[in-house]
Amino acid sequence: MTSTALLTDRYELTMLDAALRDGTALRPSVFEVFSRRLSGGRRYGVLAGTGRVLDAVEAFRFGDTELDWLRTEGVVSSRTLDWLADYRFSGSISGYREGELYFPSSPVLTVEGTFAEGVILETLILSILNADSAIATAAARMVSAAGERPLAEMGSRRTHEQAAVSSSRAAWIAGFSATSNLEAGRTWGVPTMGTAAHAFTLLHDSEEEAFRAQIDAMGAGTTLLVDTYDVMAAIETAVRLVGRDLGAVRIDSGDLPVVVKAVRDRLDELGATSTRITVTNDLDEYAIAALAASPVDSYGAGTRLVGGSGHPTAGFVYKLVERADVDGSMRPVAKKSVEKAGNAGRKWAFRLLEDGVAIQERIVVADAEPEVAGARDLVVPLVVDGRIDPAFTGTAGVRAAREHHARVVAELPQVAMRLSGGDPAIPTVLA
Amino acid sequence: MTSTALLTDRYELTMLDAALRDGTALRPSVFEVFSRRLSGGRRYGVLAGTGRVLDAVEAFRFGDTELDWLRTEGVVSSRTLDWLADYRFSGSISGYREGELYFPSSPVLTVEGTFAEGVILETLILSILNADSAIATAAARMVSAAGERPLAEMGSRRTHEQAAVSSSRAAWIAGFSATSNLEAGRTWGVPTMGTAAHAFTLLHDSEEEAFRAQIDAMGAGTTLLVDTYDVMAAIETAVRLVGRDLGAVRIDSGDLPVVVKAVRDRLDELGATSTRITVTNDLDEYAIAALAASPVDSYGAGTRLVGGSGHPTAGFVYKLVERADVDGSMRPVAKKSVEKAGNAGRKWAFRLLEDGVAIQERIVVADAEPEVAGARDLVVPLVVDGRIDPAFTGTAGVRAAREHHARVVAELPQVAMRLSGGDPAIPTVLA
Repeated sequence: MTSTALLTDRYELTMLDAALRDGTALRPSVFEVFSRRLSGGRRYGVLAGTGRVLDAVEAFRFGDTELDWLRTEGVVSSRTLDWLADYRFSGSISGYREGELYFPSSPVLTVEGTFAEGVILETLILSILNADSAIATAAARMVSAAGERPLAEMGSRRTHEQAAVSSSRAAWIAGFSATSNLEAGRTWGVPTMGTAAHAFTLLHDSEEEAFRAQIDAMGAGTTLLVDTYDVMAAIETAVRLVGRDLGAVRIDSGDLPVVVKAVRDRLDELGATSTRITVTNDLDEYAIAALAASPVDSYGAGTRLVGGSGHPTAGFVYKLVERADVDGSMRPVAKKSVEKAGNAGRKWAFRLLEDGVAIQERIVVADAEPEVAGARDLVVPLVVDGRIDPAFTGTAGVRAAREHHARVVAELPQVAMRLSGGDPAIPTVLA
Repeated sequence: MTSTALLTDRYELTMLDAALRDGTALRPSVFEVFSRRLSGGRRYGVLAGTGRVLDAVEAFRFGDTELDWLRTEGVVSSRTLDWLADYRFSGSISGYREGELYFPSSPVLTVEGTFAEGVILETLILSILNADSAIATAAARMVSAAGERPLAEMGSRRTHEQAAVSSSRAAWIAGFSATSNLEAGRTWGVPTMGTAAHAFTLLHDSEEEAFRAQIDAMGAGTTLLVDTYDVMAAIETAVRLVGRDLGAVRIDSGDLPVVVKAVRDRLDELGATSTRITVTNDLDEYAIAALAASPVDSYGAGTRLVGGSGHPTAGFVYKLVERADVDGSMRPVAKKSVEKAGNAGRKWAFRLLEDGVAIQERIVVADAEPEVAGARDLVVPLVVDGRIDPAFTGTAGVRAAREHHARVVAELPQVAMRLSGGDPAIPTVLA
């Protein structure tokens, strides 16, 4: 397992250094991850990345490579280097299930331990949750815009090569059907799919030869890319080669509603009534919604998805909300700057439902979890005294997150499915 | 070295499979990376990621882990698996130096080899160049808006944890002075820096105790975060503790022009005239430009930088532009879809200068590099017959890219520094 320890801002370690020096580092502390608002006036957010956070915490160890570099650079004192050499997170983490929805102030992750143990995880935890949740939130909107039609994730080439893998994972959790990314298939069990590129057609001496080569290798059920030269000519060639068994055609350019209708008409005229049409080309939730009345069978989303459809980060922050005083008693804390003021204290969260429809995000400040009648308890233990619950990690964790997401998104009121900017679908009430 | 082979779209391998089957896979081919336009009406683009591409090509090998998974999933035939097992890129890659500027149609990378060798690198090469160049381009605009004042990259928490590392690298190439990201320091030699978080103040029983702890550990030259409670009170505390030697204060909230002026006035009244002021808080090139008249000494940019300041991907595509016919002669190729039409043929590029100022991006289609008088040759060999030129990789490659960027950005005409959207700073002429 590659160490994740230096995927960290320098100040986490220098704060640790100063706190070890004055003795405050070992004060029991509670850090909370939450978002002050939903980016872009979205109606709900989708939490993703929790399983990856747990893996990253497990791999947050300082080996010789990391310690030697820190020593050479003089980042922290030798006492702090000794402390880091022995570091292994031994605290507890609780939070929302991966795939769960969140709203402003939802405490999606809570880290409890000493200040030292918690502070050095800040950067890494935020990187993962902010990136993955931005993608999952955009993906969920596309899934709802697509209705019953399946969506494939194809954005690998438009984002960092490792972000591509986690974006596929996040999109799948939020309801996409498949990904083009092979590593996401291998690591996270996301179903993989693919069609062909224009290069494959251009490699061959004619479009017909390219289609024949693809059909020979992949079978008649394959998806042929038909817009390299002339779309209508390509469709005739394709149907001539395989007849009505042609699986699907992909269209990647042009004014899609017009082209799609013409393609469907021509396929039907040629008798290929069961041949499906898949469209790609910078689709986002708005473009997908605009194709609702077009005879599209499936969508591929790439660029706009991996960019979070205009909001590439989720806006989560990681704040100290409670810490021990000298006498050991816990004290809620929060900064006071007007536009960034926080809510002090350890929190629990519940989703209130009425006739199966979500009506409120209820957040309660309390040391231990209270009972809230008629509400779904949102906070579950993920790590207890350093032991990670394996149910939330690996491919099983991803499958569970996908199922959980499908369940909870169905509870949202109708207004949540509006693509326009506005207020959160349900109010957050801090009790 | 971890394999990069599955950081790839499935269709690259299925196209390979079909092309190996019909014999076209071994046709000599030329693939080109270019961008049809500059995102967001930017005046120029900054190429970054080339050094990472070379490392990724080196690591693009199919070991047992990758082959076993492909076999189990039935992605490609056993013949193709055998071919992949032996794969090692043996072709040539040429392109713009990392840090170089680019314009619409600039051939920033050209991959020559068989179709098979080139096609399977498409996804990975695009992932890296699109992500890194988007960051470098945004970074360069912030650097030009900041003028002589230094900029630190602090966006790790707002992007994927590995994208954070390459974003730091890209920002440094484009002229940032430092990063908060430790892994970018270790891997790429980017200078690291840091201040402190609000959590550190909240951990302590008073702001004064927090400041004292930080000063004890880091010295009087440290940067104190002064906006946890009351900014003016914090400044008085800070100066009382260390006097005029106080290194710097950081402000992370409020209406910055107003707060910065008040802070400067108060510091000066207290005699701390050499104490610097650094500001953070979602800065982008526009916010930085708006602070030009304020007494700011340095900036920290995070969220907006790692999101490419609204354009998180560079829009590069990877297209087959030339390939052999059956008789071995090379044939230029391009697709014909109206809005995505490409320019066929192997290309070379030159920047024409007049009195040291760039006036034109000249692109010439030719088999071998032509001479263009009075122009800077933009295309250099990066990989020759599978051998990577080490000058473009590692920390030396990053330093060279940073120096090259500083040199070439100084050649741009004044109009290039306008932050408003518009035409590219110089025209692209395809000869």
